[in-house]
Amino acid sequence: MSSKKHENNQKRNVAIIGCGLIGQSWAISFVSAGFHVSLFDPVEGVTTQAKEKIKAKLRDLQNYKLLKDKNISDYLDRIHLAEDLSQAVAGSIYVQESGPEDLNIKKELTKKIDAATPDNIPIASSTSGISTSLYASDISGKHRCIVAHPINPPHLIPAVEIVPAPFTSEAITHTVKKIITSIDKEPLELKKEIPGFVVNRLQGALLCEAFNLVKEGIASAEDIDKAISEGLGLRWSFMGPFQTIHLNAPEGIAGYVKRYEKMYKEMFNKPDIEWASVLKLGLEEELLNLYKLREREKHEKERDNKLTELILHKIKT
Amino acid sequence: MSSKKHENNQKRNVAIIGCGLIGQSWAISFVSAGFHVSLFDPVEGVTTQAKEKIKAKLRDLQNYKLLKDKNISDYLDRIHLAEDLSQAVAGSIYVQESGPEDLNIKKELTKKIDAATPDNIPIASSTSGISTSLYASDISGKHRCIVAHPINPPHLIPAVEIVPAPFTSEAITHTVKKIITSIDKEPLELKKEIPGFVVNRLQGALLCEAFNLVKEGIASAEDIDKAISEGLGLRWSFMGPFQTIHLNAPEGIAGYVKRYEKMYKEMFNKPDIEWASVLKLGLEEELLNLYKLREREKHEKERDNKLTELILHKIKT
Repeated sequence: MSSKKHENNQKRNVAIIGCGLIGQSWAISFVSAGFHVSLFDPVEGVTTQAKEKIKAKLRDLQNYKLLKDKNISDYLDRIHLAEDLSQAVAGSIYVQESGPEDLNIKKELTKKIDAATPDNIPIASSTSGISTSLYASDISGKHRCIVAHPINPPHLIPAVEIVPAPFTSEAITHTVKKIITSIDKEPLELKKEIPGFVVNRLQGALLCEAFNLVKEGIASAEDIDKAISEGLGLRWSFMGPFQTIHLNAPEGIAGYVKRYEKMYKEMFNKPDIEWASVLKLGLEEELLNLYKLREREKHEKERDNKLTELILHKIKT
Repeated sequence: MSSKKHENNQKRNVAIIGCGLIGQSWAISFVSAGFHVSLFDPVEGVTTQAKEKIKAKLRDLQNYKLLKDKNISDYLDRIHLAEDLSQAVAGSIYVQESGPEDLNIKKELTKKIDAATPDNIPIASSTSGISTSLYASDISGKHRCIVAHPINPPHLIPAVEIVPAPFTSEAITHTVKKIITSIDKEPLELKKEIPGFVVNRLQGALLCEAFNLVKEGIASAEDIDKAISEGLGLRWSFMGPFQTIHLNAPEGIAGYVKRYEKMYKEMFNKPDIEWASVLKLGLEEELLNLYKLREREKHEKERDNKLTELILHKIKT
């Protein structure tokens, strides 16, 4: 992990509110990137347990040589167990709330955090499905409320969805993306709120079809899983679905859509699929900028090399 | 790659009909697992070009130490360029047809292969979308026709979809699965034909939602790709979607469905999602047999270790 990226994190403090599995993972990510971390949980005793679990997971990371400092204690010394909310947020440049997935609880909790925290400090929620518009619209500091949704297990998976509400200030969105990047995560920004955000909508779409295949008696769960874990999932571990199809036709994504849109329409009996028109909304242009057709051979070669290396890696592990 | 698995392949011959990208990849998989391979393509000169391309890709594999034999020539010596179809299939225990994706061409080609090939030799097609019922129902040897659909690039991706028609004999399906396994591939068997098979239906479902997210102006293609390549795709490179959600709730897949079915119904505005009833069709039982709840902690630990190793691998490459 890059230590240059972490330079500005030293001696800065973040607050983690809610210390279940997700809160613990955030603590690991922040502390291993140089931050001081204050933990608070409304339920007594939870922060003490959380620190023990964090310690165990830090040890696992150390065994894999994924930590910079030699001693686990160097990290643990930077984790402070706060007695109350105001102690946790005092001096923090960022608050990550990881409370229960319940609209009313989240409303209450965010209101309390807002009241206790100096203005302009971002208050990010780990929620996987409740939009900021729903839980923060009545809060006076709503301009600094935002979703930063990690993926389980969050101390290992890089992607974090950043979902501002229409009332979230651009400066806050910018700051949150910067902080998330500084802890070696990959922020992906939603321009608009949508139920399920991006990650769970993509997962949900795949799951709907997987359940459908079982319902129709097409294949076993084990074989459906294999279609991903020994098939599509290999490319997807380093290349998203758009880049994948852009590389699957000599003319890029437009060629792929020309060739296969009809097949997908018929396959799903969905005549309203209109990928060709979506291409014109900037999608084709974006992909052609990201992966130029004249560098196609290079990109193909890179894909095949990465796949080969991944397969070698899978054989070894 | 295991050489014990390849023992029975020595001195046996398979025929590859159609020598574009897919045919070439099949040749590499068969020849590197010990088979002799006869190449035939109706267009003159194609097999000679194909052999050159096979040579280049074998070199790549050798550079990665993925080949058993020391010399590329050991492999090339086992590749025979056939003058015509009957020469290619003569003495072959298996025929892999990789012709164009056109129903009429496939009908014609399969008819010719059937006429030239001794009875009971499997004739497998690489088609990604045309069911055997469609191209082989008028063929006298239809009982030995079947789909064996690989994933691009097929010499690297293990999964191969095995799709028998209702008229394909069970013995043929069994033999084809055995041969595919003997070349280090992972056969996944469809119990019934369905348009798009399993792989393209899963990919298509994900693509439909990805295009929808662009259409709705939710995120850039780059950020949608990141949701997979830095997010969901990491687990999916070694664990399918069912296993993933089975491990995401303490009570296994039933717990996940209980907790999240409603969220997905609302997210997609699809009240007809009925995962709970699909669970009862054997899905829950299968998953509980594959991954027992009492071994849950072990499976979680394995997942986290594999993820950590994958992340280390990605940092290095």
